[in-house]
Amino acid sequence: MSAIQKNVESASEQYSSTFTQGHLALPPAKKYLVLTCMDARIDPARAFGIELGDAHVIRNAGASAIDALRSIVISEQLLGTNEIILVKHTGCGMLTFENEDAYGVVEKNLGAEAVAELKAKNLDFLPFPKLEEAVEKDVEFLKASKLVPESVTISGWVYEVETGKTRRVV
Amino acid sequence: MSAIQKNVESASEQYSSTFTQGHLALPPAKKYLVLTCMDARIDPARAFGIELGDAHVIRNAGASAIDALRSIVISEQLLGTNEIILVKHTGCGMLTFENEDAYGVVEKNLGAEAVAELKAKNLDFLPFPKLEEAVEKDVEFLKASKLVPESVTISGWVYEVETGKTRRVV
Repeated sequence: MSAIQKNVESASEQYSSTFTQGHLALPPAKKYLVLTCMDARIDPARAFGIELGDAHVIRNAGASAIDALRSIVISEQLLGTNEIILVKHTGCGMLTFENEDAYGVVEKNLGAEAVAELKAKNLDFLPFPKLEEAVEKDVEFLKASKLVPESVTISGWVYEVETGKTRRVV
Repeated sequence: MSAIQKNVESASEQYSSTFTQGHLALPPAKKYLVLTCMDARIDPARAFGIELGDAHVIRNAGASAIDALRSIVISEQLLGTNEIILVKHTGCGMLTFENEDAYGVVEKNLGAEAVAELKAKNLDFLPFPKLEEAVEKDVEFLKASKLVPESVTISGWVYEVETGKTRRVV
């Protein structure tokens, strides 16, 4: 067992020993979802004030709305959420490369077969050059999608990894 | 401003007022990533023992490895992680429907144009009928992918929403 796996086991033992929230229902109690980045420096529950059971939390590289669409449709259409809090962040890795750079790294590290798999899946890494603009574009994408009805409230935010602050953009 | 948005602002004010971790680096310090479900009943940081700055956390509907592949490749190839902790959970919404059910709900709630958008994007909701089997299949998918080198350690787990426990499957 790896050190990381051991850590999961010991954390679980500790967490479950005082766990009292086994009664929570499947649909989010406060009917909203948070979409943010996978970045290691973000703790959504504490930074954005999410109580256990209240909201879906979707995380991917860059908090991409395009990448999250499957989960968003499930959250809204099958589990009744009607508000989206979209949070990108300062210092995001997605600001630092373009698709061809990532394809180049994959080719160098993993070889031609891996690049062929990327191409077969038509994989777009969805990097973005400007932070605030990317927040606006993702909110626009969601508002334009027929899969997100007008009744859904959508706002776009930036979390500052330097200060721990979250500020609204749109 | 909605009540949810107000809650983000007040939580942020509180969190940032005592924030002391603005120095953390972009790459995860412990070089691992956790892939889990967007479910509102999961707090990965506490349940799985993730300290701020240590690991990427990817979350989508059902903790789908297929859906997460873009983020996983970025995490490993561009940000140096080399271990995956994949955690699905009891009581998952993805156990309760099939693709045609979800397509039917979208058609009923949002109409034919929305279904056309689903079809144009070739959107698979990726539900699964059996929990442990789905964990095994996703681990196999990652091990078979040329985009995940053999040097990456992968384990599959189940989080129990009833008890707060996380147990290893594979």
